[in-house]
Formats: sequence, structure tokens, C-alpha cells
Amino acid sequence: MRIEKFAKVMKERDFDGALISPGSNFYYLTGIRIHEAGERPTILAVNPKGDFHILAPSLYENVIEDVPVTFWRDGENPYAKLATIMHDLSLSDGKLLIENTMRADWLIEISRTVRMRPYPLSIVMKELRMRKDDDEIRLMERAAKVVDEVFNEILSWDLVGMTERELALKIELAIRERSDGISFEPIVASGENGANPHHEPGDRKLRKGDMVVLDYGAKWKGYCSDITRTIALGQPDEKLIKIYEVVWEAQENAFQTVREGVKAKEVDRAARDTIARAGYGKYFTHRTGHGLGLDVHEEPYIGPTEETVLENGMTFTIEPGIYVPSLGGVRIEDDVVVLSGRGKRLTKAERELIVL
Amino acid sequence: MRIEKFAKVMKERDFDGALISPGSNFYYLTGIRIHEAGERPTILAVNPKGDFHILAPSLYENVIEDVPVTFWRDGENPYAKLATIMHDLSLSDGKLLIENTMRADWLIEISRTVRMRPYPLSIVMKELRMRKDDDEIRLMERAAKVVDEVFNEILSWDLVGMTERELALKIELAIRERSDGISFEPIVASGENGANPHHEPGDRKLRKGDMVVLDYGAKWKGYCSDITRTIALGQPDEKLIKIYEVVWEAQENAFQTVREGVKAKEVDRAARDTIARAGYGKYFTHRTGHGLGLDVHEEPYIGPTEETVLENGMTFTIEPGIYVPSLGGVRIEDDVVVLSGRGKRLTKAERELIVL
Repeated sequence: MRIEKFAKVMKERDFDGALISPGSNFYYLTGIRIHEAGERPTILAVNPKGDFHILAPSLYENVIEDVPVTFWRDGENPYAKLATIMHDLSLSDGKLLIENTMRADWLIEISRTVRMRPYPLSIVMKELRMRKDDDEIRLMERAAKVVDEVFNEILSWDLVGMTERELALKIELAIRERSDGISFEPIVASGENGANPHHEPGDRKLRKGDMVVLDYGAKWKGYCSDITRTIALGQPDEKLIKIYEVVWEAQENAFQTVREGVKAKEVDRAARDTIARAGYGKYFTHRTGHGLGLDVHEEPYIGPTEETVLENGMTFTIEPGIYVPSLGGVRIEDDVVVLSGRGKRLTKAERELIVL
Repeated sequence: MRIEKFAKVMKERDFDGALISPGSNFYYLTGIRIHEAGERPTILAVNPKGDFHILAPSLYENVIEDVPVTFWRDGENPYAKLATIMHDLSLSDGKLLIENTMRADWLIEISRTVRMRPYPLSIVMKELRMRKDDDEIRLMERAAKVVDEVFNEILSWDLVGMTERELALKIELAIRERSDGISFEPIVASGENGANPHHEPGDRKLRKGDMVVLDYGAKWKGYCSDITRTIALGQPDEKLIKIYEVVWEAQENAFQTVREGVKAKEVDRAARDTIARAGYGKYFTHRTGHGLGLDVHEEPYIGPTEETVLENGMTFTIEPGIYVPSLGGVRIEDDVVVLSGRGKRLTKAERELIVL
């Protein structure tokens, strides 16, 4: 069982316990999916022996079953109940792993009730989650297949005249039809909006001559895919075509660098050097990629200072981009797994510039 | 400007500063909407004089403009840059307000870099945000109108045979068509699934005799609505009809209790007593309501121990429910504003049991 394995690693690393709020780690360890816990404290407490107990709002009385659980009702003090749970598991006064995404107000209240020294849970969880097993890789391949299919469907649509928002919705629906849903809100960034890597789709209509950045992902049984393609609607600006070629080369160079034993930062450097050599260094404003799995962003990160040594089973994105204010942007992103010592792309949609 | 007003209240309450991550407070104070900040530290620092500075990943270089801002690039240490910002604003070593929803790992790292005593930001923000001004109430009325319209549209659909998930998607699309989008993922809980107040819509098909709980909301220029109606598909179980009447009465009694000067817990008690008198006390497992505004859950909460005194301009939900395992559930929810000393419903969709 995953909780036992987690407890073992926690013990080896000399931590005294863990407090885990709902999210992918909670699901990974318990198999229980909590839908929108919101502001009501919901916490899985685990000690290094592998004993565990869940604190949950009474809302979940018919959902969380067959595990050690204490429910609290609105109006009761959940932190007093948590203190009892922590005492029973001998979690007080120690080095505790705290779920990275736990709300700060929960952590503040817990620290006020129970003495402890908090550390980010990812220190230990990344050991467990970074290397995917064969079952997990199969689910990720399936999630990647969905976004490839959706890309081909996009190419069949009448894009000119559609707003970014309309296209983002169509992409979302095409993903939902084929999977458990989106892994994040699709990004559609057209024309000069492409210069913002995290552009929120708006009312701008796609027009002839635009380069359009499409960044979207699907979930399959909890596992995420994440793809970016940049397409052209009619002949785009020469400068953007040049930029496209640089990004494409950077993405290929980074991919070819992926090997068992190579550090994540070396993959980043391959992309970064290619872009810098072409004179666009200052327009590549983010890391080359991020791990992918139950979360759409997780370990290992592929950035300039990341020392993680790549191993078989690791899954991550490679997604260099160039963003030039008032001109536009280009990004090309694939999902990659390390298998038999080498990189293998999970997403396979066409990477050559498509001019519609 | 809202930051100045916020700084004034912070000073009165004897806090030394605030660190605010993206979300509704960040937006309320700056007007800047950050789309999916994710794991990259993005923080607004404010001191009691009203000076402020933003730390943001370089991803947002083309988004955050015309305000004091320091960008950090992937590979740089954002917390070192934040320490400089905090030093320049004299925020070190004091009582700091921390955005309630800030990720715990950010707070852990900040606490490691800068000495401080953290407190939940809501202590001060609720003062500012709990009472809505006329412009805000107008936006909330607009958001409420959207969900009323969607309810009438739902009644025109062929519901029997549809899965919960299909219906949830249709509701979402109907909301998106009329507004800025959903304020949370719609809940469709049919038959015995109705016994879970936060049921995630699944593959169960709606059938004759079902009671179906529909809980959904819209956003209009950032402001949320949130409605629940429970409808019957053909003649339902007598027990559920009885339950419906109790919930309806509880909702009406709670609404009639809303007055300027009344405590939130008295509104809760009106609903709770009605349900307890009918013998269903243990099946009402949540508070009666929650504040509504830029967030779909915010102050004032309407629960059994909430001492907040209601004032004009406060907006919240009233949503008692009864949930009986293996039978089903009923919830009726309206959005309410206190105006001229009395409660006024913003949502107006039919509350009498509709049998389709």
C-alpha cells in the first residue's frame, strides 16, 4: 500500500510525520478523491510507522468510509480535533511534512495549536511520484493520445473569425468528450497576445496572418497530458517564422539531450543555448519544462538550476518558447518519458509549422 | 484607492504588513487578475503606510505593468528577492497578515527567510469586503439573474435518461453563454447520490421518481452567484416530499430572520431548529450558508457559532439541506443581501417543489 511506502521514506529521511490536505498526494496515498474541499480543514495525518487518520468535515460522512476518520461539524473547532489526532499518532512537537498546497490559514492555525517544525511535503513525495510505474505510464500515454487527437480536430475547424474564448471552449469540449476532462484551462493566444505565455483567452478574433499559440491538456484516470502547438493562419510575419524555427530546434535539441543519468538542468541548457545563440535569449522567460503526472506541474522541473538526475519512468514536458512584446510568441511543447535510458515523446502531433 | 483603505484598517488593527498571493483579495486590491499563478511565488507586499510592491515570475512581464514590481526568472530564488522587498517596506520581524489561501510551501519558505508572526489576512479583509457597495450589489444581482435564467432553461430539457455528468456540462455551458463563467463546478446529485451534499456528477442516469439536487453558480465581472434547487422527475418517494417541505420551511424561516443587527448564528438557528423539530436534525450536516462576493465562499459565514452581526450590504447564501443515506437529499439555496435593514433575495427561481 502506498501509505506504508511513504511512511518508510519519511522515516528514512528523519521526519516525524505528515499532514496532507486534499489534492494529488492525498489521492495518491489514499485513493480517496475529495471534490472541492474549499476552506473547511480536511487533513490526512500519517506517522512514520504508517499509522494514519483523516480529519474531515461532516459533509463527507457518506464519502470517506472504511478508513480511520474523525468528522467535524460546522460550528465545531476542527483544529482541536486535529490536535487529538496528532497526539494519538505522536505527531506533536516534531519535524512535520506539510502538503505544499495546503492553505496558509490551516497551517497558521495548526502551528498555533500544536508545536511543530514544518517542511514541504514534496521533499519526500517527489521520491515516490517522480518515477512512474508501467501502469501510470500507460495512463499518461492515453492522456497524451487525447490531446493529439484534439489537435487534429482543431485543424479541421474554421478558425478565422472565431474569438480566442470561443476556440478555448471548443477545445475544452473536444477534450472532455474524449477524457475525464481538462488538466488546466486551455490557453489560446493569438497574434500579439502570444507574447504572454499565460495569456487568458479573450475576445480577440483570430485573423489571417496570425500565429496562434494553443496550450491545453487532458486527464485520464487522474493522469495529465499537456501539449502546446503554435499554428499560422495564412502567411505570418517573416520574423515569427524565423522564431518558430528557433523554438522548434530548441525543443528538438532539448529532447535529444534526455538520457538516464543526465541532469534536468542540462536539458534546460540545450533549449536555452539554442535560443540564446539565435539572439532571442531574453525572450525565453520561463523554464524549459515541468514534471507531469497526477499534477500538471510536479517534479522534476526542467529549469536552469535543477540538479535532479533523470531516471527511467520520469515524465515531464519540454516546452521552450520565445515571446516578443507587441509581435507575438511561439511555444512548442511535448510530454516526454524516460524509457530504457532515452527520451520518448508521449505527444506526437505534428511539430512542423502548419499554415492553414 | 482600495490599497490605502486596506492599509488604514491594517494599521488600526496593529498589523505590520501583509503578504497577498493571487486570488480575490489580490484582485480586489490591485485590479490585476493573475491567471493560474500555480507554484511560482507571486506576492503583493503592503505596509501600513500603504506602500506596496509586487513580486512576480517573469512570465507576467507583459501582464503586470505600471505598478512597483520585481520579476524573478525560473532558476532564481524568489524568496531572496522577496526578502529585499520586505526589507524595503519595513515588513520584517512583525505581525504579518498572510493571504488565507497562500500555498503552505510559500509560507514555510518565507518564514525561513524572514522572521515574522503570521496571521490570516481575512481578519482584516473581511472588514472591507463583507459589506458590498451599490456597484458590487448590482454585479451580484446580475450574476443571480443568470442562474435564475439557467434554472428555467433546465426545466425545458429532457432530463430523464441524461447522466449527471451530461447535465452538469449542459448547465455549465448555459452559464458560460450568459456570463463570465461558472463560479464553481456544477453539482448534479440524483436519487440516492443526493445524500452527498458535495456529490461529484457521475455516470448515473436520471430516472423517473428521482429527486435531483442542482447546485451551480455564475460569475459576472468577478462577482459570484450560487443557487440550489431540488426538483423531482415524476412522483418521488413520500419521505422525500416530506423532507422537501421541511427544508423549504427551514429556508424560509432562516430568510425571515435576516435583519440588520441580527447575528449570523441566529439565521443558522432558525433553519436548524426547523429541521430539528421535524426530526431530521442529524441529517443537516453543514452550516446554513456562506458569504458570497468575489469568492463563492467568503465572510460572513452563517453557522451555529458565527457571531458576525448582519449589516446592510452583506451578501450570503441561505441553503439548509437534509441528507439521508441510501435515500437521497434535498437542498434549497438562495443568495441574499441585507438592504434597508431587511433580507432581499437575489435569486428568485421557483422554490415550490417542481415535479416534471
